[in-house]
Amino acid sequence: MFFIIGLGLGDCKDVTVKGLEIIKKCDRVYLEAYTSILTCGTEALEEFYGRKLIVADRDLVEQGADEILFDANRQDVALLVVGDPFGATTHTDLILRAEEKGIEVQIVHNASIITAVGCCGLQLYNFGETVSIPLWLDEWQPDSFFDKIVKNFKNKLHTLCLLDIKVKEPTLESLTKKKKEYMPSRFMSVSEAAQQLVEIINKRKLLEQSDFLPNEVSLSIGLARIGTSSQKIVACSLEDMCSVDLGNPLHSLIIVGPELHPLEEEYLRKFQLLRK
Amino acid sequence: MFFIIGLGLGDCKDVTVKGLEIIKKCDRVYLEAYTSILTCGTEALEEFYGRKLIVADRDLVEQGADEILFDANRQDVALLVVGDPFGATTHTDLILRAEEKGIEVQIVHNASIITAVGCCGLQLYNFGETVSIPLWLDEWQPDSFFDKIVKNFKNKLHTLCLLDIKVKEPTLESLTKKKKEYMPSRFMSVSEAAQQLVEIINKRKLLEQSDFLPNEVSLSIGLARIGTSSQKIVACSLEDMCSVDLGNPLHSLIIVGPELHPLEEEYLRKFQLLRK
Repeated sequence: MFFIIGLGLGDCKDVTVKGLEIIKKCDRVYLEAYTSILTCGTEALEEFYGRKLIVADRDLVEQGADEILFDANRQDVALLVVGDPFGATTHTDLILRAEEKGIEVQIVHNASIITAVGCCGLQLYNFGETVSIPLWLDEWQPDSFFDKIVKNFKNKLHTLCLLDIKVKEPTLESLTKKKKEYMPSRFMSVSEAAQQLVEIINKRKLLEQSDFLPNEVSLSIGLARIGTSSQKIVACSLEDMCSVDLGNPLHSLIIVGPELHPLEEEYLRKFQLLRK
Repeated sequence: MFFIIGLGLGDCKDVTVKGLEIIKKCDRVYLEAYTSILTCGTEALEEFYGRKLIVADRDLVEQGADEILFDANRQDVALLVVGDPFGATTHTDLILRAEEKGIEVQIVHNASIITAVGCCGLQLYNFGETVSIPLWLDEWQPDSFFDKIVKNFKNKLHTLCLLDIKVKEPTLESLTKKKKEYMPSRFMSVSEAAQQLVEIINKRKLLEQSDFLPNEVSLSIGLARIGTSSQKIVACSLEDMCSVDLGNPLHSLIIVGPELHPLEEEYLRKFQLLRK
């Protein structure tokens, strides 16, 4: 049997009782460690589970399906994923490959940022499409995700922006070489995301006439380490968000729609940035 | 301290290790039992936790905040909620009231249908706004939710439809009386939801010209008991969905957007309804 087990968002103890039982009995357990991270680290997980984990980087998960699934029709193999197995990224491809090999698959769901984000007080019903904001590089500054934010905004919906994570990403130069070299891990912060957004808004202002677009005074919400005991939430204009420091990763950003329900407004008040 | 603890979607063991530890040590534990249900029932939960639960119906949660929060600045009180505390329904109002009383609040997140729905193979990124479909009564047949489905469809997004649950709802006649009488529990099925949708589509066809609306041949996905071992998923036209029987509650329905990613298409194939 092949299990994909969500670990939730916080620390070791956010695994479900069902998930923990399976982890303890499996022959091999992989920890997917490139689309998200837990604040507690691999060693703490190993200690809590009382067993060794195999850290699975992007190469292994995306190209090493045969290795992960090896013998899984006779043995029990699990892949642990931060959040929900179908949360920020999907592992549907791995499931399809397992089924091709006649391997049974079981999913253990858990909390995902996509719903946990409700802790800021915005109603989940009022969110449109989720977007991912990539970390800009000098030579690569895509902004097509902004169109989705605009569409949500025009539809009076909030947008959850998942911020880029670069863990064990090969350097551009080494992509063509035999031996890959990796960049240091980087986690996009709410201030970096806000700065990129303000830059896009300024560029588009020169081109467009519409006055119903999110702009630099639009309300945004910065979220850090949601679901952990050090969780932080700040609500302020996108411009002010450019200089907000929420500390350690992971961060997410919400672009609030143009209208708030009174209950949303009341709840958000407690996260308002106090200006110096 | 006041805790709101998500129980996930399946059975007793879908609680997190953190949630279980808190449940065991609390002075009072309420089980919210009107917005969703677990397939395992209250007794099984009590046995698994090794403690008594206080079943909290709509009246208690919506009007009995003082009772639930009584003494919670000196004692530990928990409210258990199926799914995530911020999932299908929010408990933001209760949190605000607790904080007004100076009571500390801690949230324990868990899986919610809003992300678990990814198990059908559709990418969560490609979903628009979530809608709720109410069970029609003879005298009350609202259809405004359909506008949101249309909006998502035009934006090439899928729509997750949460289906109505009626648990301990007072009868219309008893609303004005002192002693409330309650209707038997009802859980909307995918076929009932599909029938209501087809009726709305037929009504609107007479009124509107647009050819870019979901219609009765649009692809829909019926989901039952997601996250449990008896989970069922079926993909077929909305018209065929009118006669699909997925068994016991809870059911959800997806109206698939007009375009599918190849991986979504491949994954959905295994859920295709086999016509007799």
